[in-house]
Amino acid sequence: MTKFSMLRREENTKKFKRGETIFAEEDPADVMYVVLTGVVDLKSKGISVNQVSEDEIFGEMALIDNSPRSATAFALTDCTLAAIDQKRFEFLIQQTPNFAVQVMGVMADRLRKLTELSLNN
Amino acid sequence: MTKFSMLRREENTKKFKRGETIFAEEDPADVMYVVLTGVVDLKSKGISVNQVSEDEIFGEMALIDNSPRSATAFALTDCTLAAIDQKRFEFLIQQTPNFAVQVMGVMADRLRKLTELSLNN
Repeated sequence: MTKFSMLRREENTKKFKRGETIFAEEDPADVMYVVLTGVVDLKSKGISVNQVSEDEIFGEMALIDNSPRSATAFALTDCTLAAIDQKRFEFLIQQTPNFAVQVMGVMADRLRKLTELSLNN
Repeated sequence: MTKFSMLRREENTKKFKRGETIFAEEDPADVMYVVLTGVVDLKSKGISVNQVSEDEIFGEMALIDNSPRSATAFALTDCTLAAIDQKRFEFLIQQTPNFAVQVMGVMADRLRKLTELSLNN
């Protein structure tokens, strides 16, 4: 998956222990996360839909369409995450057009995988 | 779906007759389209996955990850489309951060729908 090394120095960081829930499906949402260390698992209706590693992002959909979380995220290992709120997200898009293209790349990747999955079922 | 009225005055337009194929799954791809008039149907493996109307976009994934078309697009009615190539797409992202957010919104919408579809099967 796309690497967001430009986000390595984000300051609003948070640590999670292995097994801890970061957010749950249907939770209200106001930040996306970038993984600084560790691995995060995303589950939708109990099914693992994605694993997210160092320099990768998750939870970005909350900032795009202001909907509740579409998946549950939990720490597969001890993790350090940086949280990016709406204001910071908009700043990154305005100041770094490449950031916007990279976020779109992550979404395109997920869309292609899900299209495969849903049409093969 | 999100309306891209900011693209109404794009100049590189093309007309398609009802029933005509605009592009086919697996075709190499270098433009996205905005629908100026008419309705376009998108099919993946023979299954209709989306209908796109006036001021809505399709084919944007080609510009994001340079992959072949993930769906077949055909004109459900007579259509006028505007084609937006890579260079124009990047210009729009740089000059109009809101355009980037809107494209992400379209992708988020498709992701949520596909997640529902694939997990309910």
